[in-house]
Amino acid sequence: MIVIMKSQARTSSVSAVIAKIEDAGYQVHLSEGEERTIIGIIGDGRPIDRNQLELMPEVERCVPILEPFKLASRDFKPTGTSFPIGQQMIGANEIILMAGPCAVESRSQIIETAHACKEAGAHVLRGGAFKPRSSPYSFQGLGEEGLKYLAEAREETGLPVITEVMEPAMVDLVCEYADILQIGARNMQNYALLHAVGESQHPVLLKRGMSSLMKEWLMSAEYILSHGNSRVMLCERGIRTFERYTRNTFDINAIPVVKEMSHLPIIADPSHATGKWEYVSAAAKAAVAAGADGLIIEVHPRPEEALSDGVQSLKPKRYAQLVREMKAIAEAVGRCIP
Amino acid sequence: MIVIMKSQARTSSVSAVIAKIEDAGYQVHLSEGEERTIIGIIGDGRPIDRNQLELMPEVERCVPILEPFKLASRDFKPTGTSFPIGQQMIGANEIILMAGPCAVESRSQIIETAHACKEAGAHVLRGGAFKPRSSPYSFQGLGEEGLKYLAEAREETGLPVITEVMEPAMVDLVCEYADILQIGARNMQNYALLHAVGESQHPVLLKRGMSSLMKEWLMSAEYILSHGNSRVMLCERGIRTFERYTRNTFDINAIPVVKEMSHLPIIADPSHATGKWEYVSAAAKAAVAAGADGLIIEVHPRPEEALSDGVQSLKPKRYAQLVREMKAIAEAVGRCIP
Amino acid sequence: MIVIMKSQARTSSVSAVIAKIEDAGYQVHLSEGEERTIIGIIGDGRPIDRNQLELMPEVERCVPILEPFKLASRDFKPTGTSFPIGQQMIGANEIILMAGPCAVESRSQIIETAHACKEAGAHVLRGGAFKPRSSPYSFQGLGEEGLKYLAEAREETGLPVITEVMEPAMVDLVCEYADILQIGARNMQNYALLHAVGESQHPVLLKRGMSSLMKEWLMSAEYILSHGNSRVMLCERGIRTFERYTRNTFDINAIPVVKEMSHLPIIADPSHATGKWEYVSAAAKAAVAAGADGLIIEVHPRPEEALSDGVQSLKPKRYAQLVREMKAIAEAVGRCIP
Amino acid sequence: MIVIMKSQARTSSVSAVIAKIEDAGYQVHLSEGEERTIIGIIGDGRPIDRNQLELMPEVERCVPILEPFKLASRDFKPTGTSFPIGQQMIGANEIILMAGPCAVESRSQIIETAHACKEAGAHVLRGGAFKPRSSPYSFQGLGEEGLKYLAEAREETGLPVITEVMEPAMVDLVCEYADILQIGARNMQNYALLHAVGESQHPVLLKRGMSSLMKEWLMSAEYILSHGNSRVMLCERGIRTFERYTRNTFDINAIPVVKEMSHLPIIADPSHATGKWEYVSAAAKAAVAAGADGLIIEVHPRPEEALSDGVQSLKPKRYAQLVREMKAIAEAVGRCIP
Repeated sequence: MIVIMKSQARTSSVSAVIAKIEDAGYQVHLSEGEERTIIGIIGDGRPIDRNQLELMPEVERCVPILEPFKLASRDFKPTGTSFPIGQQMIGANEIILMAGPCAVESRSQIIETAHACKEAGAHVLRGGAFKPRSSPYSFQGLGEEGLKYLAEAREETGLPVITEVMEPAMVDLVCEYADILQIGARNMQNYALLHAVGESQHPVLLKRGMSSLMKEWLMSAEYILSHGNSRVMLCERGIRTFERYTRNTFDINAIPVVKEMSHLPIIADPSHATGKWEYVSAAAKAAVAAGADGLIIEVHPRPEEALSDGVQSLKPKRYAQLVREMKAIAEAVGRCIP
Repeated sequence: MIVIMKSQARTSSVSAVIAKIEDAGYQVHLSEGEERTIIGIIGDGRPIDRNQLELMPEVERCVPILEPFKLASRDFKPTGTSFPIGQQMIGANEIILMAGPCAVESRSQIIETAHACKEAGAHVLRGGAFKPRSSPYSFQGLGEEGLKYLAEAREETGLPVITEVMEPAMVDLVCEYADILQIGARNMQNYALLHAVGESQHPVLLKRGMSSLMKEWLMSAEYILSHGNSRVMLCERGIRTFERYTRNTFDINAIPVVKEMSHLPIIADPSHATGKWEYVSAAAKAAVAAGADGLIIEVHPRPEEALSDGVQSLKPKRYAQLVREMKAIAEAVGRCIP
Repeated sequence: MIVIMKSQARTSSVSAVIAKIEDAGYQVHLSEGEERTIIGIIGDGRPIDRNQLELMPEVERCVPILEPFKLASRDFKPTGTSFPIGQQMIGANEIILMAGPCAVESRSQIIETAHACKEAGAHVLRGGAFKPRSSPYSFQGLGEEGLKYLAEAREETGLPVITEVMEPAMVDLVCEYADILQIGARNMQNYALLHAVGESQHPVLLKRGMSSLMKEWLMSAEYILSHGNSRVMLCERGIRTFERYTRNTFDINAIPVVKEMSHLPIIADPSHATGKWEYVSAAAKAAVAAGADGLIIEVHPRPEEALSDGVQSLKPKRYAQLVREMKAIAEAVGRCIP
Repeated sequence: MIVIMKSQARTSSVSAVIAKIEDAGYQVHLSEGEERTIIGIIGDGRPIDRNQLELMPEVERCVPILEPFKLASRDFKPTGTSFPIGQQMIGANEIILMAGPCAVESRSQIIETAHACKEAGAHVLRGGAFKPRSSPYSFQGLGEEGLKYLAEAREETGLPVITEVMEPAMVDLVCEYADILQIGARNMQNYALLHAVGESQHPVLLKRGMSSLMKEWLMSAEYILSHGNSRVMLCERGIRTFERYTRNTFDINAIPVVKEMSHLPIIADPSHATGKWEYVSAAAKAAVAAGADGLIIEVHPRPEEALSDGVQSLKPKRYAQLVREMKAIAEAVGRCIP
């Protein structure tokens, strides 16, 4: 951290800052410019409270030098994290495809969709049993019944299952049925939940909050990692901006940025990132070209009857077409979709 | 809801939409313009699935006519909601002042601050026992110990206590000690938590999510209301924008908008809405002038030693000065700070 | 347009709205629901003033049915616009590559860069002679001298030249030297300038304003088109959001959306859309995969000596590598980079 | 400026940065921490190119210490700028009221409105003769004819006149008729225009761009100041955010921030900052309480007939009521509305 003093700061103010830093067990490095005095803090990386320094007399501001996340940073693990999901490796050269309906609506619906997704080339089945809905009057998911249907669909197709968990008390239940836990965008900073999934041994897909800085997203990953679970995937699903023509703005830049800042795999969700099925294919292909390690896409056999998110769901036939197109792009960028 | 057909839509597509609407038990009203055919849905207010209609052939889009919230709307209760908090009424002519530190740090700190706030004119004591922190390495609050200190501070000063609850499993515990439950911005769409506080009988202060539309905020209030708890206050605490000079952008417009759209009291949080103590007074006075029913402000006896949010905390002396200024403005707009 | 009356609107208010619409020469279509009365306006597409209707007694709001742009809409020209740029066609199956430095800094710099870009595969040379800089103390470009150097570089390499024009009085001058006029993001709503380039016969690349809705961007294109210049390209260059790790957020969704809403070619600018050279390649490849008709990329032989935008400029060698990668992706999506 | 080297940067990279800085005529101050080497640049405030340093090997990033604006900064003129507008002083204890229609629509309309505004208590008459409209098909203003009507209205009422200038070529013409030049939000970074008004001797009201950082806004003021015109007012008129219920989000924080960062007067525009007349009064009162030096408000005798912005215009009677309320608040905060 660097402390920048105000213009013309008195010697006594500078001394007070130095004393505070030294009291905390750090060394200081003083630099007196013509316009400003600047105090560098030299130490072992233990946190020092920025707020407290900023409130000392004649301090203008503090500038952190290090990123606040450690376990999630690329520095911590330069080679990148990879781990198996079903028959595939996530975070390796292969690109993993997750697909399925927004919500599990019935036993037959999820089994039909699972077969269609598998046939189209998907590796993992998605489907929500607990649904976060902005209205208390909307369909909230089938709950444990939905989890059972997901498990049945896995039995029938062999596809591992990803589903959302919304509260700490449900983590154990969801772990009984699911292979991957999903943390939704609205819960990216639900710390009790991050803590709980951090203590499970299931892989976690952590969606970016709809207005979260990438730095905050990595800090949320840090919560999970620091509780002992190292199998975390980050999922870019679009951010909220002023633009209204699409449901969200797909922050495609996040893919190369996360690759540089972190060792964790990065998944793209073009369904939420666009919000309209017409744009899902273009966004999905862009994500493959930009370097995503996987894609999670909403597929429904009859979107016009879906109980949620129908407008952003692809029909199986169109999804199969998209998989073929993504395979060609994966090859063009030196990767593969198995 | 209105369904707008695409330009030159075929008669068969129009008929299909009409059939779908009528099958769901509604009447239709058809309007054939030169450019577009438009189909109005006439019914009893039961929800009809917008997504499903939008996916029918040659439908361009649907336009909802009614707001999605009901119990939270001004239409539902035109006179406005008011209820007692300690000796005062919230939502009436009086403006209620809540003040205290970001976090309960020790028994002596909260008791000292409670006395100072009361003396300055505050009506309610704030203080966090469970703290949502973006870093797992930051101070997370004292937990139940902090709740006990809050209760002691109430004993000593008579000030009712507001504190944050972060997970459903903690609602009962927090209710034992606190008078008002606070839902933080990060949890505005934590539906399990909204459900749980909806079943308690404690008043709830619901902070707006940092990137939540006012519509979504009112929908979250609807969750609480629809579970049986009618004593909800809305709290504007700044939204996330591109501007970086302040921590958040105080959406002062939200005050008159909420007043028009809803019957619920609206509280302003100028501490988070600015993020720097230098700007808190200006923002607080603006909130009073704009019609806020209350203010929640961070006060700490020694901000430079605070374990969190020191930079946005006022010292008691400055807070007392602000209370005097707010009283003058309250009077100028025909209200009073008791 | 549809007029939605307030709940329980009086008959007299409804009649007044109807009278106003009929006086303006339109027909009305009345729909009386249980909750709301809705009035459809049927006419020949002439504009009717929404504001005026919204201010009539008991009107809740108006909903426009048609998009406000006409000449720029896909409806106006369903087949798409294409026109020649040098030896290539923009808006056809080919993807056009524009490259060069942010600013023309010297005769030798632009000529050296032009040769390097051509060799790497670029079809058009970019370079700023007039530079919009946020500081009055920064390098503002070489002006007409820069235009002359651009023309020399075209002589030497055969590459057509694109450069920015910043004010109406300069349009004629810039047209003397340049093949394509660029309207910068800050000038997207500089209507006097749009008017002026609309009257020239040079192709125009219209950058999206950094916080412009796609609808507004198309309205700005409409200004140019309506003044008689039909050779307009739209350029997505990133929008301003809360995210700070990249200079802008690349709105990749804009590519398929513009393709659907408009017949105009869409160009991507991954240099500005990311702001850091490390992310330019990923963003550029994403744009090709998403369907862009062209790319404009900053290339500088020695970015560390550039007078502006060095951090987002590629070196020629890296650019050449990127061109090879983009060619592979173009082929994978059924297009070609000649 | 401070240069932060990457973790484990080689000595040779550090030496290269030092050599570059010293070559440019600065001194360096080296600080070698355990995690990072940091290089301070000590000099006389001349600009050094951040981009060039950031691109040197093993440089992580640069941190500027000083704000980029000088003439606009509070440091430059700690006492604040004030100058006369008609009979009043702007930037002093008095709060100045500007009012009038969005656009001059006819001779009688502007004269009627001028009288009504004066009677209600306004000190300056606003009215647009040149209108920036997002659609080429909307009313674009009366042009010079409108300027003449404004001058006539000044003759009749004695109110000085503020009106927008949209292009450099029009500055002289507008100066002939108007007392204050307005730069609209869309033109905040139209540098040719800033240059032109900087060379005039008329006071300038500079609106904040709808997505401009306060830092950029002050840099645009710097353009005007550096061309010799010191009579600049800043105008906060709302910024673009994700919220859709209001036209813009009124950044009330900007008032105290500008007061701290700059010596220039700050004006609030609650009409654009809300976009709906119902919220204008609350926002205007908030601005007075927060410390604004003036307000510019749209007033129209018959908003339902206005050719632009009717929905955000107050009727004279309501404006007169608002002036009375603002006077009470001004007094409560120790200022006055004459």
